[in-house]
Amino acid sequence: MFESLEIGRKVSKEEFRARELELRVELLDLQRRLRESESPVLVLISGVEGAGKASVLHRLLEWLDPRGVATHAFWDETDDERDRPYYWRFWRRLPGKGEITFMFGSWYTKPIIDRVFKRNRKADFERALVRIREFEKLLTDDGAKVLKLWFHLSSKAQQRRLASDVKAGLHGRPWMKAFARRYERFASVSQQAIHFTDTGFCPWHLIEATDARYRDLAAGVALRDCLHAAVAGDQLPPPVEAELPELAGQETVLDRVDLSASVTRPQYERRLRKDQRRLGRLAWQARDAGINTVAVFEGWDAAGKGGAIRRMTYALDPRLYRVIPIAAPTDEERAHHYLWRFWRQIPRGGYFTIYDRSWYGRVLVERVEGFAEPAEWRRAYREINEFEDQLTEFGTVVLKFWLHISPEEQLARFKEREKTPWKMHKITEEDWRNRERWDDYAQAVHEMVLRTNTPACPWHLVPANDKKHARLEVLETTIEAIEAALDARRG
Amino acid sequence: MFESLEIGRKVSKEEFRARELELRVELLDLQRRLRESESPVLVLISGVEGAGKASVLHRLLEWLDPRGVATHAFWDETDDERDRPYYWRFWRRLPGKGEITFMFGSWYTKPIIDRVFKRNRKADFERALVRIREFEKLLTDDGAKVLKLWFHLSSKAQQRRLASDVKAGLHGRPWMKAFARRYERFASVSQQAIHFTDTGFCPWHLIEATDARYRDLAAGVALRDCLHAAVAGDQLPPPVEAELPELAGQETVLDRVDLSASVTRPQYERRLRKDQRRLGRLAWQARDAGINTVAVFEGWDAAGKGGAIRRMTYALDPRLYRVIPIAAPTDEERAHHYLWRFWRQIPRGGYFTIYDRSWYGRVLVERVEGFAEPAEWRRAYREINEFEDQLTEFGTVVLKFWLHISPEEQLARFKEREKTPWKMHKITEEDWRNRERWDDYAQAVHEMVLRTNTPACPWHLVPANDKKHARLEVLETTIEAIEAALDARRG
Repeated sequence: MFESLEIGRKVSKEEFRARELELRVELLDLQRRLRESESPVLVLISGVEGAGKASVLHRLLEWLDPRGVATHAFWDETDDERDRPYYWRFWRRLPGKGEITFMFGSWYTKPIIDRVFKRNRKADFERALVRIREFEKLLTDDGAKVLKLWFHLSSKAQQRRLASDVKAGLHGRPWMKAFARRYERFASVSQQAIHFTDTGFCPWHLIEATDARYRDLAAGVALRDCLHAAVAGDQLPPPVEAELPELAGQETVLDRVDLSASVTRPQYERRLRKDQRRLGRLAWQARDAGINTVAVFEGWDAAGKGGAIRRMTYALDPRLYRVIPIAAPTDEERAHHYLWRFWRQIPRGGYFTIYDRSWYGRVLVERVEGFAEPAEWRRAYREINEFEDQLTEFGTVVLKFWLHISPEEQLARFKEREKTPWKMHKITEEDWRNRERWDDYAQAVHEMVLRTNTPACPWHLVPANDKKHARLEVLETTIEAIEAALDARRG
Repeated sequence: MFESLEIGRKVSKEEFRARELELRVELLDLQRRLRESESPVLVLISGVEGAGKASVLHRLLEWLDPRGVATHAFWDETDDERDRPYYWRFWRRLPGKGEITFMFGSWYTKPIIDRVFKRNRKADFERALVRIREFEKLLTDDGAKVLKLWFHLSSKAQQRRLASDVKAGLHGRPWMKAFARRYERFASVSQQAIHFTDTGFCPWHLIEATDARYRDLAAGVALRDCLHAAVAGDQLPPPVEAELPELAGQETVLDRVDLSASVTRPQYERRLRKDQRRLGRLAWQARDAGINTVAVFEGWDAAGKGGAIRRMTYALDPRLYRVIPIAAPTDEERAHHYLWRFWRQIPRGGYFTIYDRSWYGRVLVERVEGFAEPAEWRRAYREINEFEDQLTEFGTVVLKFWLHISPEEQLARFKEREKTPWKMHKITEEDWRNRERWDDYAQAVHEMVLRTNTPACPWHLVPANDKKHARLEVLETTIEAIEAALDARRG
């Protein structure tokens, strides 16, 4: 998940100045109108140590009118707090209607830290997360807007920050080193907490914090949208990763895919044969072990999904697999929850199901084309994670592929299709229309990867400008995953 | 909790016939309109073995038009089901828009049964409940109406049912005996499940099943209200315990309180002195052990709350207690969540806090007088249980008293107050108005006890027609609870 927050988003000094001015005016106006409204606003400042949480907070406070704004830090427990139930400290600091409260540290802090340092058990940690969800539901049910900001820094960037602190003679934060040593554990624990509490009613805003200007502006925009919702009495708007979608040329996780990856024809044919033989054997072993596999294919139009699927099914005994192409839903499917059609098709233990497009349509095409309401696709991330959790708990191998090509490559393929009689049917008006919304789709893919890239069900972003490379990567990723599952079963 | 479902509600044969006719007409009409609507309707039939779940289902099916109605029983697991994630079996049986599905057994069955027979661990059981809540949220977010019916039978009634089955030569249900032997355990596990999943968006309907006619009518009325909400596109209406509020003279849990309880003056004075001395000593011991006590006083106007509180505080060192009278909220309190004002006042470890009226105002006066919306007071039960859970987890002794008097006794006390110069100020127009709504309050009290009578924080319904008796009972209940907490602490 967090890797998607390490793509080097930044804002230039000039751009920052221009946007800051605009943002301040908006914030002050909204703050004034908030005073008359029925909503308390609560902003949680959280994230990796060294991400500059204190600096963000200073910046936001600088932009706002200090009246009606409170800040509370929760770290050193007082006697007063220790002598009462844990949530008492938060309850007494809650903002009233029309007020804004920033919490530096929050109800997440203690469960996460305790888990990082192994001071609580897994079951206690999970119980704490359930309690958090109840508390946030209680607050939002009552009309409060809870803006949860998470600032991320890569391990390297954290090390750099630590080194520069030491250089600057800042020895005031002795715990920084303890955290830096446990970076991976902290990331994995935080990720669990975020996934479990990234609900439709109270979503997380995940912000890359490497560039201070981007970080501060993104936080400011999120706060502006939150105040807007409070004033209008609306639901919190869904967080748009790339908090600054207006920024031209905003990078996404797709920009980090190395599209130059390719293989030669002889290499391809040799590896393909080998991979297919291997996969064919593994499929039977998986069947004997009762392990089933769900492979999801998503990707740009003309990225080569069909070809990759055929190379996979060619390797498999037809008794062992089904390919499920996802087109527009049937009447019966439309009458049910959008996940229903996918649950129906879940294979029995031991079998393969290949989805040509999938439940991710909810947060891709349905989001971009407006077929689903923002509230609907927003809560779909959590619903999808829960769905996939159930699959992996059952022992299913879940593979999620995004086949990535450049817009130029797509154009070339579209043109070739139009020229080739037996491919003509594959290209429609709709493909051209989708192509025009490339950037919107890229943003949707970015957020999809960010929010559904769980440790048990990671996304594989496959470079597919070279079809041969893509096919091999899909096959080999599948082989590895099934081998790992078989090894784990043999345990 | 379940005791409140053992008050002997019943319906006569004549009344049943009249109401059945009316209900069938309504149900058929609503069912016809449901077909055009956007809501699937899902009815879960659950409860104690022997409560007649199959009979209720037959009755409901008899009342409805069979078109668009499906019934699924989940008990014998098929191979098909075993080979897929647990929820697959439910997903494939979900109703589409405009359809009604009855589930005989549901996603609750396996976690509860496994827990009763100790086939899963506590943490697994809790995880299963979290999953249930996510699933029900997903369904209701998508517009489905999920009606959860729980049918209750007392242990004695279950034994009678078992005996009559055996007499009738019905040996077809061998598991009945296994359940009858584990009645208490089944009740306690079910209670946990119900409390955790009794959410505002998907509440439980709890129905006393001793009398078949009452049971069936109550289920029918709940279904009618559910269909009504589905057709109107409204939220599910809050379940009203006493599902048949229209029934004149409906009994409540208060009717089981023995108001004849009394003590003589000499007995009273002797026990009072002894109790007060004992409580005074215990309060210091509790302070040294860091155990705090929260005592909640609710009851009818003129039931003697003030007097009972004074007898308690007289025993306590003033340094150790605070009395918090709850009147109309201040401006500041009104600007926050209704629980905020109570959280503020939570005592530190070792102290006593006495609430003269409390957070239960939300589900009593605010409900009856319409100060809170149905959705607001409905979700308050779960919020209150969660609040009290946090207190007891912290080690607080939570005592909840309802001081009960008869309407006649109240009238006599009102009249006396009006005649007595130094009591005149205690009686207002409002008291007379409240008195007129006695039955509505009694229903609200009944449901409050039903839904918030948790094992860790039980309600004490104190007979208070005799003030002396009430005071002693309050003192002695308090003493016992603190002694138990001290013993537990000493281990």
